[in-house]
Amino acid sequence: MLIVKKFGGTSVADKERIFNVARRCIKDYQAGHDVVVVLSAMGKQTDVLIDMAKDINPKPPKRAMDMLLTTGEQISVALMEMAMAALNVPAVSLNAFQVAMHTTSAYSNARLKRIDTERIRHEIDQRRIVIVTGFQGINKYDDYTTLGRGGSDTTAVALAAALHADACEIYTDVEGVYTADPRYVKNARKIDEITYDEMLDLATLGAGVLHNRSVEMAKKYGVQLVVRSSLSEAEGTVVKEDVNVERMLVSGVAADKNVTRISVVGLKDEPGVAFRLFDALAKANINVDMILQSIGREGTKDISFTISGDSTDDAVKVLEDNKAKLGASEIKTKTNVAKVSVVGAGMMSNPGVAAKVFECLYNSHININMISTSEIRVTVLIDVENTEKAMNAMHDMFELQD
Amino acid sequence: MLIVKKFGGTSVADKERIFNVARRCIKDYQAGHDVVVVLSAMGKQTDVLIDMAKDINPKPPKRAMDMLLTTGEQISVALMEMAMAALNVPAVSLNAFQVAMHTTSAYSNARLKRIDTERIRHEIDQRRIVIVTGFQGINKYDDYTTLGRGGSDTTAVALAAALHADACEIYTDVEGVYTADPRYVKNARKIDEITYDEMLDLATLGAGVLHNRSVEMAKKYGVQLVVRSSLSEAEGTVVKEDVNVERMLVSGVAADKNVTRISVVGLKDEPGVAFRLFDALAKANINVDMILQSIGREGTKDISFTISGDSTDDAVKVLEDNKAKLGASEIKTKTNVAKVSVVGAGMMSNPGVAAKVFECLYNSHININMISTSEIRVTVLIDVENTEKAMNAMHDMFELQD
Repeated sequence: MLIVKKFGGTSVADKERIFNVARRCIKDYQAGHDVVVVLSAMGKQTDVLIDMAKDINPKPPKRAMDMLLTTGEQISVALMEMAMAALNVPAVSLNAFQVAMHTTSAYSNARLKRIDTERIRHEIDQRRIVIVTGFQGINKYDDYTTLGRGGSDTTAVALAAALHADACEIYTDVEGVYTADPRYVKNARKIDEITYDEMLDLATLGAGVLHNRSVEMAKKYGVQLVVRSSLSEAEGTVVKEDVNVERMLVSGVAADKNVTRISVVGLKDEPGVAFRLFDALAKANINVDMILQSIGREGTKDISFTISGDSTDDAVKVLEDNKAKLGASEIKTKTNVAKVSVVGAGMMSNPGVAAKVFECLYNSHININMISTSEIRVTVLIDVENTEKAMNAMHDMFELQD
Repeated sequence: MLIVKKFGGTSVADKERIFNVARRCIKDYQAGHDVVVVLSAMGKQTDVLIDMAKDINPKPPKRAMDMLLTTGEQISVALMEMAMAALNVPAVSLNAFQVAMHTTSAYSNARLKRIDTERIRHEIDQRRIVIVTGFQGINKYDDYTTLGRGGSDTTAVALAAALHADACEIYTDVEGVYTADPRYVKNARKIDEITYDEMLDLATLGAGVLHNRSVEMAKKYGVQLVVRSSLSEAEGTVVKEDVNVERMLVSGVAADKNVTRISVVGLKDEPGVAFRLFDALAKANINVDMILQSIGREGTKDISFTISGDSTDDAVKVLEDNKAKLGASEIKTKTNVAKVSVVGAGMMSNPGVAAKVFECLYNSHININMISTSEIRVTVLIDVENTEKAMNAMHDMFELQD
């Protein structure tokens, strides 16, 4: 069996944890399996590097930033090779150049295009454990790129797909996917099985356990994922196409506080305005989430939308640069907001979930800024200080507790 | 004019020094020159990485060690690209993969074989300052290698040769090459010009300013070097084929305390013994320096030789493994020794320098362990505690002071 195992930064934060990961990998290796391990940078290493960069240049070029950050995972994999050697197990560490992890050109937010498997296959054939840098790739200019937040999950899934792996295990510091973040909702329950679509909505909406691109890719290539703890032997959560357990109406509640709402005010009410607005943002690689169009004063219209808090500066710059072209009178930014969502494949065949969400928020005296729904999800934008109150109210409403 | 400039770890140890280096490069760039900068890892970064490695595995695999250490220079060049961007000068940082710095396979002690210049030429043509990682390369397996101690100098000279650069400037924390290390010999004098051969002997023998391989390569390809301070504007020392100044008998005095003497005792006195001994060491990539063969007891012979202190463990292992094959009765190791040398192209036409050296040591009551000479050098191995006394005595004897 070929197993891809991914460990995040906290799992390799110090010597003891590095050896803990090494031993978990060696256990599978000694049971006769082929093992490919994907690692993130150690603990707070990425933050340390970001601080070094910002000290030199508050707006570091993204190309140079990726050149800097990719050293983080290279350190992790090199130390892991040393740890496995200390345990007398043959291992080899490889970075994005050595594997040849081809990505799009967009520095700091690239997408994986193609992974060469020749080198990894060769190392597996030599019965070595292969340790690969997560999060990083190379683009057509032969420059380093990074995959953005949580990119190591994507690396692991992409490797599992490219190598036709039999299992892809994502290790984290929690025991799996929960019905809500246990830090905010005390009686949250671990979910045994969940579909790609549900997981995708939970990931996108800030459940924080898996990166949404990794789930998209797992769904696309049919890679079955297991999310489990690097610190315990507990069974994790299986993410797959079909779930056997009895379908719950709602699987979980997710929240994302890293959100900015931007309102573009006083746009001309004519065709093509929305296109020009969102095209400008797309060209700057800014992902837009919820969108609301409303009628403004005197024949104008206002468009509000949410983006990731990380893109705030970039988005404001793009909009200010295009303000005249768009005919906008004002750009308003609001950062103290959060998205809270209920997700569940069961709601496809059960109308009324949205109404229940609104009822629940009304009972809790929480005002709704924006609403967005899909077949398996209801999302509301609320003031950030109400996040936990809303999550707990919804968790209780849909009886998700143990 | 195309200028290659190399800055060591102390020159990029912190933000202020990084900007200092950036400004020196930009000055040449703005004068219309093409600039290629070679950087080492920041300050004590390499030592920090070595400590991390040894904590995980006291004997880390050399391949993994190179994978780890090469992150050091990558951090330096990425930060330098950011510093230059902050000063509004277009720059691009490149590592060994991106340049394609091909080396031999020997991890931790590789030799440069070939440098692809296409990417660097392309970046120069775009009028960018090109910032290259020193010390590192890639081998035929597509693995990182490192060039050993002082390898960044070699990178700079090799780049200057490959790019047919008009100048190659090696920046250091001293103002040039001195007649002796000013830390040990107070009245040491800066040398204005020195030949490759003299520099080679001084480098090999521990003057510590330039790496010997870099001087060898400069000589081979006729690259004129300038050694100068990164902290002042003072003229440095020019290293070239012919020197115009009046030929001194002796150019300088050098010492190397990182030496181990190994004695292989009780070897059979038959042909091929020395060959087998040194062949075994050569195959393990251990460079042998001074060699002394003496007659032992009862028809046996003893062979003593010196090696770099860094190779002690490796050499002892090789010798113990081959002890039976060599027919040796004992392997003795002595580490508290130092090599002290006088170097000067002028001694070729002036016999009697060696006699003067021995006289000078006799007058200082210093015992000589081993002697080695070349056309332009006399080296003695002495007890390490006499190093400074011997250096000062020789410096005075040959009137090298200001």
